[in-house]
Amino acid sequence: MFLNDPDTVPEADRLLEAQHFAKVIEAFNHYRLHSLSRNAKRRRDLASIPKAHQQLVGSFMEKKINSVEERILKNAAFIASIVAGHQNEETNGGTKSQVSEGDMDKVRSTLRQFVRDWSEEGREERARTYDPILDELQTRFKGVSMEDKGKIKVLVPGAGLGRLAYDIVKQGYSCQGNEFSFYMLLASHFVLNQTQQLHQYEIFPWIHSFSNSTSTDVLLSSVRIPDVLPGDVPRTADFSMVAGDFCEVYGEEEHIESWDVVVTCFFMDTAKNIVEYIDIIKRILKPNGLWINLGPLLYHWEGMQNELSIELSLDEFKQVIRTKGFKIENERTIETTYASNTRGMLKYVYECAYFVGVKH
Amino acid sequence: MFLNDPDTVPEADRLLEAQHFAKVIEAFNHYRLHSLSRNAKRRRDLASIPKAHQQLVGSFMEKKINSVEERILKNAAFIASIVAGHQNEETNGGTKSQVSEGDMDKVRSTLRQFVRDWSEEGREERARTYDPILDELQTRFKGVSMEDKGKIKVLVPGAGLGRLAYDIVKQGYSCQGNEFSFYMLLASHFVLNQTQQLHQYEIFPWIHSFSNSTSTDVLLSSVRIPDVLPGDVPRTADFSMVAGDFCEVYGEEEHIESWDVVVTCFFMDTAKNIVEYIDIIKRILKPNGLWINLGPLLYHWEGMQNELSIELSLDEFKQVIRTKGFKIENERTIETTYASNTRGMLKYVYECAYFVGVKH
Repeated sequence: MFLNDPDTVPEADRLLEAQHFAKVIEAFNHYRLHSLSRNAKRRRDLASIPKAHQQLVGSFMEKKINSVEERILKNAAFIASIVAGHQNEETNGGTKSQVSEGDMDKVRSTLRQFVRDWSEEGREERARTYDPILDELQTRFKGVSMEDKGKIKVLVPGAGLGRLAYDIVKQGYSCQGNEFSFYMLLASHFVLNQTQQLHQYEIFPWIHSFSNSTSTDVLLSSVRIPDVLPGDVPRTADFSMVAGDFCEVYGEEEHIESWDVVVTCFFMDTAKNIVEYIDIIKRILKPNGLWINLGPLLYHWEGMQNELSIELSLDEFKQVIRTKGFKIENERTIETTYASNTRGMLKYVYECAYFVGVKH
Repeated sequence: MFLNDPDTVPEADRLLEAQHFAKVIEAFNHYRLHSLSRNAKRRRDLASIPKAHQQLVGSFMEKKINSVEERILKNAAFIASIVAGHQNEETNGGTKSQVSEGDMDKVRSTLRQFVRDWSEEGREERARTYDPILDELQTRFKGVSMEDKGKIKVLVPGAGLGRLAYDIVKQGYSCQGNEFSFYMLLASHFVLNQTQQLHQYEIFPWIHSFSNSTSTDVLLSSVRIPDVLPGDVPRTADFSMVAGDFCEVYGEEEHIESWDVVVTCFFMDTAKNIVEYIDIIKRILKPNGLWINLGPLLYHWEGMQNELSIELSLDEFKQVIRTKGFKIENERTIETTYASNTRGMLKYVYECAYFVGVKH
């Protein structure tokens, strides 16, 4: 389910890409050591507090730290299956690790992303964010036969672990997911192509922070993936995942007026220049094509010193969309968390903008 | 309203303190330049996007960037009044600025803290977090005369900008706020002692990030402080604010069994060793004294490589409290934001633990 046409990618880009890919593999490989080391610090901290305090917390804290250690090893085994078969693409196996705390953060959030996209526990979040999109498609293409739905081409940029794209294909539409991050690409490739049975893998996504835990049981609890078995999609529908930068891939001429629907879910704020995203979406949609958007405006590049960042408020964003020639329909606000532990003491709640832009 | 006894502070500590104080003053002074520079980058970014995109967003983005510039200058004038009179305590006026992005973050969050503690806009958050505490005191000390309430000594560690301590004094209790951060201490000193009229100052707390803004009007909107005029407290009650580290100040012998009530509101998770906090609270309370707690467990030192951090889950936290000899009463969960822009598209929602610990 992955498209990669080596002929369309310039040599220099391919080299950069290979280096970046190797870095991601290295980060995945480094998870075990890094997590064990952070957990070991807890053991040292515990040993350094007064004896009287150790008597109060020592027994259960040691047990918790040991349990987390066991679970780190299990997560590491899971991560090893994700990178298995990609190891030979690593370029700097011998040299000192260049893995940063930020890279490790991405590995940990990949685990949480599995919860959001491919577990029972993620069902509520998916119901809040994917269902309105699936319902919109259903309303717009009501009465279209399964056979003909396969001719409707839906593009999902920022596809992450691919669940939304997969759910769209399950409805009968042809769908292409596009994703820039190799963390997401490796993980989505794994779940889409290499899972053989329901609940095959057990992961422990909440062990990496001890803060805001209601209970140790919650902290140590596991999540099983996948909740559905990817693969069984309608034979009339095409499903693909494409690696690469949205602007680079879909800025190409071949995409002009070639898509019936573009679905942006928690995607628009990944832009350095959001106007360029809007431009491209307009250009690649067929006349009367639909743009379904759902997400906040947490601009990923804001405040980064050497990166371009154009940040529109929601009212300005919509103003630009209208000026570009979209009719905005079904506007509303959808409140949701994102890859959140529902049983934790802190939640990031997004007031997402939802709307459909009709190209005219 | 500030207590400072120079005789009890060792010379070395006083020097460290003076240096830290100077650094905070420097950060406040640096706000104007830093914020203008970040805003100027937006202007450069705007100039660097394609002309067609500039035509779409240029006019309103330039206007917004200019409006933010004006407001930065107004915030800077407000900040100048906070540090006015403390300037001579600065030690390294001539040297190169040592102000980090983290320091600037603290200056910006001090502005948001004013919203939480001293504005009409903060009323909802205060109702959710301070009212349960004030109600608890009212229930526990029902029927006590105003005169006698002044003899009840309440301690509020992590007092921030002092509103909770002030509200407690307004009810007739004597209250001491304790605060470690000089950002908070300078700002609370200012609002408590140097405001002469309601809504005297206009600040613009939401201009520093363009992300997750529903509208430019919200981004540019002002907040007026204070919503009440501090000063008019019952003559039978004592009100003081004490600077310093909670463990250092209240670990002293003089505090043993000297407090009727300790109120910890968003405070316990500032501990490096939370067991030490519990220890001290137990020790400084009179027999049958009350500990009222409200807050999450977002351990401030978790994950910092060279800092001790002991992180209990909520169930473990309560277990320790019981073992230490507290009876836990009125347990519940209170959902609230913290210094949040109610009209933004992202909210951090805390599921706070609330309970009363009765020392026995």
